[in-house]
Amino acid sequence: MRDVAIIGIGQTPVDEHWTTSIRHLALEAALNALRDANVEKVDAVYVGNMLSGEITGQSHLGALVVDFMGMSGTEALKIEAACASGSAALRVGYLAVASGMVDLVLVLGVEKMTDTSGRQTTAMLAMAADADYEVSQGISFVALNALLMQRYMHEFGWKREDFANFAVNAHANGANNPNAMFQSKITPEAYARAPMIASPVGLLDASPVCDGAAAVVLAPAEYAQALSPAPVKILASALATAPLAIHDRKDPMILEAAVLSAQRAYKQADIKPEHVDFFELHDAFTIMAALSLEASGFAERGQGIRLALDGTITRQGRLPICTMGGLKARGHPVGATGLYQIVEAILQLRGLAGPNQVNNAHLGMTQNIGGSGATVTTHILTAME
Amino acid sequence: MRDVAIIGIGQTPVDEHWTTSIRHLALEAALNALRDANVEKVDAVYVGNMLSGEITGQSHLGALVVDFMGMSGTEALKIEAACASGSAALRVGYLAVASGMVDLVLVLGVEKMTDTSGRQTTAMLAMAADADYEVSQGISFVALNALLMQRYMHEFGWKREDFANFAVNAHANGANNPNAMFQSKITPEAYARAPMIASPVGLLDASPVCDGAAAVVLAPAEYAQALSPAPVKILASALATAPLAIHDRKDPMILEAAVLSAQRAYKQADIKPEHVDFFELHDAFTIMAALSLEASGFAERGQGIRLALDGTITRQGRLPICTMGGLKARGHPVGATGLYQIVEAILQLRGLAGPNQVNNAHLGMTQNIGGSGATVTTHILTAME
Repeated sequence: MRDVAIIGIGQTPVDEHWTTSIRHLALEAALNALRDANVEKVDAVYVGNMLSGEITGQSHLGALVVDFMGMSGTEALKIEAACASGSAALRVGYLAVASGMVDLVLVLGVEKMTDTSGRQTTAMLAMAADADYEVSQGISFVALNALLMQRYMHEFGWKREDFANFAVNAHANGANNPNAMFQSKITPEAYARAPMIASPVGLLDASPVCDGAAAVVLAPAEYAQALSPAPVKILASALATAPLAIHDRKDPMILEAAVLSAQRAYKQADIKPEHVDFFELHDAFTIMAALSLEASGFAERGQGIRLALDGTITRQGRLPICTMGGLKARGHPVGATGLYQIVEAILQLRGLAGPNQVNNAHLGMTQNIGGSGATVTTHILTAME
Repeated sequence: MRDVAIIGIGQTPVDEHWTTSIRHLALEAALNALRDANVEKVDAVYVGNMLSGEITGQSHLGALVVDFMGMSGTEALKIEAACASGSAALRVGYLAVASGMVDLVLVLGVEKMTDTSGRQTTAMLAMAADADYEVSQGISFVALNALLMQRYMHEFGWKREDFANFAVNAHANGANNPNAMFQSKITPEAYARAPMIASPVGLLDASPVCDGAAAVVLAPAEYAQALSPAPVKILASALATAPLAIHDRKDPMILEAAVLSAQRAYKQADIKPEHVDFFELHDAFTIMAALSLEASGFAERGQGIRLALDGTITRQGRLPICTMGGLKARGHPVGATGLYQIVEAILQLRGLAGPNQVNNAHLGMTQNIGGSGATVTTHILTAME
């Protein structure tokens, strides 16, 4: 199989884009990525999206996007894996280029979550959970994460305010990201007095409902340097699953799909966790950040939160996370999130992350989580020499 | 890139499965395919589905299906390309095995269309069309096909009853298929007096709303003969697109995506249309059968209907189509249809199509169409020596 590189990145600012349709969001990110890659067309377009049918009444996004890009005819399809849809699309693009059958691929993640009522969006997001055994009981995603957070606090003796630094760090980084939804810092005190959504999940534990699109252009690594001044190689691409219903998991405090996905990625890249220079993780809720750190081998079970308390996760720390704001501050347009993570990791690897640049950013890892841990994708990236 | 073979097939009878959930439908087809392939597990599961979120309230089918199969942990994701979702999933599985990164892949198509009201299903299917420029005008899929059929009759001088043999042939073949929804023959007279749905589309021009699931197991061709007594090689896999909105197409009477997809497939397989022994085409409506034959090089523009009138498409004819009933009689559970076509083609290539066996079935072609021609996938298959 061929090695695969990323030769272009593009994004649209995350926001509530009330007056912009899903096709326009997709177009902006796609054209930005093509321009950055300095190519005019590609051989295939893979679109990651979760909710376009439910929210916008538009399925069939693959054909729609290539048509609106003026590239109709081109191979295109949509990939869905709940909130991991964007990175799952990258996984498909990676396999396509690796196969040798397709050379240039645009992988796009897009989600339009506004233009519907708040209640509907919550109900639609819940479709990532088990419809028959969880959602039928009235559970929502906030509630599922509240149960996980409660259990974590109970089992390991942490307090609610111990989670604050995940949100504080994300906002500190988002403040310097012109594409972030929230470009403002917050304090631990603001975290503590934020309104409660579903106890113990407060407003500042949760990522926002928003719109966005992000994209990358893939090429065979062997041609990448001829095409791009700053290609990034995909050292590992791994996707794993776990039971949808949290009550079906052996240990709800372990994200088994993240464990498997990270292990497969480390093995493929032939590295250990300590080699990772920064980690774009999936902080849809602060509890997910803690569980992701543990599952990926950076902390013991129940101890991931220590990396927030002791500053390890900050830009100056040993393992910076959410370096451009994470899901909490950059925003979480669900099907696009996995590709925002990739785009941001590449900004770091290119040394173009501005005030948020991580020192010695050689090896970046991204982890995108769907359905409270039922689908987890891990990618490991490095700049090509 | 590695050659790819199909070593196992499975299906569940197409029907209105009011008391069977989408996960049970998927499980039945998946286990049948694993049993047929004589393997207990696979490295990845790719699920083709269009409407599970909208109809069942369940997204995230990839993780759900592997969990319910007892294979949680395994890579899994969902692919959507409207009514071409099943074959688009096959395309992804093909690329994955071709890449060398994944060895055994289960590709599953599943759709649960009952358990919702008729009005809702029609509205949901319309999401495959252009939401902003077609559906907002009140168009449905039946109406879009009625406009195409009307134009075809007007431009080329055909009458409504000239389409009858597409439906008569499909039902004649479906009558011998125990997995078909309609196992009954119809006459040209029955076609003529069928209730009108959207003039000139009558009830017997249209495929039914139904539930079903079909699956195949893929393996590298080099290992296929060791694994299976009757492996089938995928000689070509091609997916192409065209504008979603029919009014944006240069010529609404030419399915441009089918032209591109078929041309790419012929080129990859290094064959010409005259080498194809039978053709599982996408007769969601009789007009689509005519247009598919033309786009694939079997007839001139406006003349595909002649192949129905002169018997070419029957089991005894030069180019049998819809040999197990097609979408019209076997049924059209949208996201599963592309894989029913593949399963049926393999029954022919294995010589196991029973009373419907086509003589000298060496080279089979399948074509799956999404959104009135916006996504078209063509596969060419042959039994391995």
